[in-house]
Amino acid sequence: MPHDIRILTEADLRDAVALDIETVNVIEQAFTALAGGDVVMPPIMSMDLPAANGEVDVKTAYIPGFDGFAIKVSPGFFDNPKLGLPSLNGLMILFSSKTGLVQALFLDNGYLTDIRTAAAGAVAARHLAPAEVETAGVIGTGVQARLQMQAAHLVRPFKRLLVWGRDQAKAQACAEDLATSLGIEAKAVAAPDDLVAQSQLVVTTTPAREPVLKAEWLHPGLHITAMGSDQEGKNEIDPKALAQADLYVADRVSQTEMLGELRSARAAGLWDAGIPAELGQVIRGDAPGRRGAEDVTIADLTGTGAQDTAIASHVFALLGDSAAGTVIRA
Amino acid sequence: MPHDIRILTEADLRDAVALDIETVNVIEQAFTALAGGDVVMPPIMSMDLPAANGEVDVKTAYIPGFDGFAIKVSPGFFDNPKLGLPSLNGLMILFSSKTGLVQALFLDNGYLTDIRTAAAGAVAARHLAPAEVETAGVIGTGVQARLQMQAAHLVRPFKRLLVWGRDQAKAQACAEDLATSLGIEAKAVAAPDDLVAQSQLVVTTTPAREPVLKAEWLHPGLHITAMGSDQEGKNEIDPKALAQADLYVADRVSQTEMLGELRSARAAGLWDAGIPAELGQVIRGDAPGRRGAEDVTIADLTGTGAQDTAIASHVFALLGDSAAGTVIRA
Repeated sequence: MPHDIRILTEADLRDAVALDIETVNVIEQAFTALAGGDVVMPPIMSMDLPAANGEVDVKTAYIPGFDGFAIKVSPGFFDNPKLGLPSLNGLMILFSSKTGLVQALFLDNGYLTDIRTAAAGAVAARHLAPAEVETAGVIGTGVQARLQMQAAHLVRPFKRLLVWGRDQAKAQACAEDLATSLGIEAKAVAAPDDLVAQSQLVVTTTPAREPVLKAEWLHPGLHITAMGSDQEGKNEIDPKALAQADLYVADRVSQTEMLGELRSARAAGLWDAGIPAELGQVIRGDAPGRRGAEDVTIADLTGTGAQDTAIASHVFALLGDSAAGTVIRA
Repeated sequence: MPHDIRILTEADLRDAVALDIETVNVIEQAFTALAGGDVVMPPIMSMDLPAANGEVDVKTAYIPGFDGFAIKVSPGFFDNPKLGLPSLNGLMILFSSKTGLVQALFLDNGYLTDIRTAAAGAVAARHLAPAEVETAGVIGTGVQARLQMQAAHLVRPFKRLLVWGRDQAKAQACAEDLATSLGIEAKAVAAPDDLVAQSQLVVTTTPAREPVLKAEWLHPGLHITAMGSDQEGKNEIDPKALAQADLYVADRVSQTEMLGELRSARAAGLWDAGIPAELGQVIRGDAPGRRGAEDVTIADLTGTGAQDTAIASHVFALLGDSAAGTVIRA
């Protein structure tokens, strides 16, 4: 029995949904639901394509109460830039959680992932950063560096922003872009320790395999969100820092212990605090969060299928009866 | 950088590809490649949606030498018939194995799965059934009962066909359909033991959780393909039959030991023959097949991502420069 399937391109989706406070709230709901215990979220499916220096990840989650669930496919082909193509791509498929019928295809080339990832950073900042953030710093100079700072600014309207990256010219360009988009002072700094020393909120956005943020740089009143690690072998934060911080929070423990900063800390024998809290538990008040202005807190974000289901459902609701996209009867 | 994505509906796909000997050969290639050792095939991703009596499976595989790889999503929502909808749905996505870009979306509602599954049955029959099959029997009366017999007839042009199902009227309808489509004598029988006794080739196509084919029915010169079990808890073949047969062959051991007949035989403590052969190894001559006309052989098919990549790539090649479907620039 054919039914209508709505298909939206990246351009359609950029028109339909933005990285705004509503998106942050939607992603916060995903974290809350995830910690509620009724979400069904299988382990990430991951496949390597060694011949093409490629990989593909599949994520999904069913959140009770949501009309749909998303399946997201994220290919990463790291030789693509040589061909003039971006490394990252992908799409999301939204299914009815009542009938399993395909409702929509979001040919987003990773756009929805970009904004749901940045929104998760804002959720972490909202619940873990000090109440007053005057200076925020970002380590890394790519798309997520920009989006994470835009998202964080929605919940902590800092006045100053620092950028550090291995490539000083890219750091400079990133700072200029953010100064324009946020209308605040933003500048590139020459050294990451200097960035951390001056900031109350730091987000790391790199694919580093050796830590870019050292434990000896931690200082009272600092919150760090590490969002770059999403694969075994990646590591942004000095493993010592996790043990040294007052609080470490995972987006999903079963993922951070495999793919995130927790993996490195455990591998180094530097984690003996048992099972850490998840961000959703802190939001729900089921686990302690920051105790005061002087605490050092770390959030470890690997990205969850629950976020994908939440953003896809949000976009579908926003579209409503609009004429955006193409409808195919299949 | 937007690129063209080709989208085909079930109707488009039914026009483009049929269950013919070419399709059987393509699926045979998938088995050969799988046994060759260079295929990358992650475990099936599976998610339950208990609130809707639903489940969704995701399969994929990278086959070296293929230009693309498929990701297939198969929802099964077993209350759908109450809503006038089919239980099974799904789609396949074909990605470039060089760049990871989406090449095509096949909104097939499970059609491509249906034919690649039936084609796998034909591959098993080609390599394991006795050279002469006069009578074939099918247990089950659904879509796969029809397609499995059509596929088997391509490689073993039997003259007589028997059908058994719990519902005699459905068995009768299935026999009539097959008599028409194959132009041979086909009839429903009252008892499954009678069907097995008269057949040289039997295919079981049920979602049974208790065996529908008993070990005492085995007779010299019989080949059985069990294709119904694809989930823990399903079991079509008496576990004793696996030990008793001269040869048991899996499509993929890592799947049949979790989801197929091998699981039940092992759980019953009736399997002590070590790691069984896979169908691709038999095709390649890397493992022994049927030794003669009197052997009893069993093939256990759970369905592999390699088959999905093979059928999706085959359809994409068949489409070539045709105008079929819709092209979206995304």
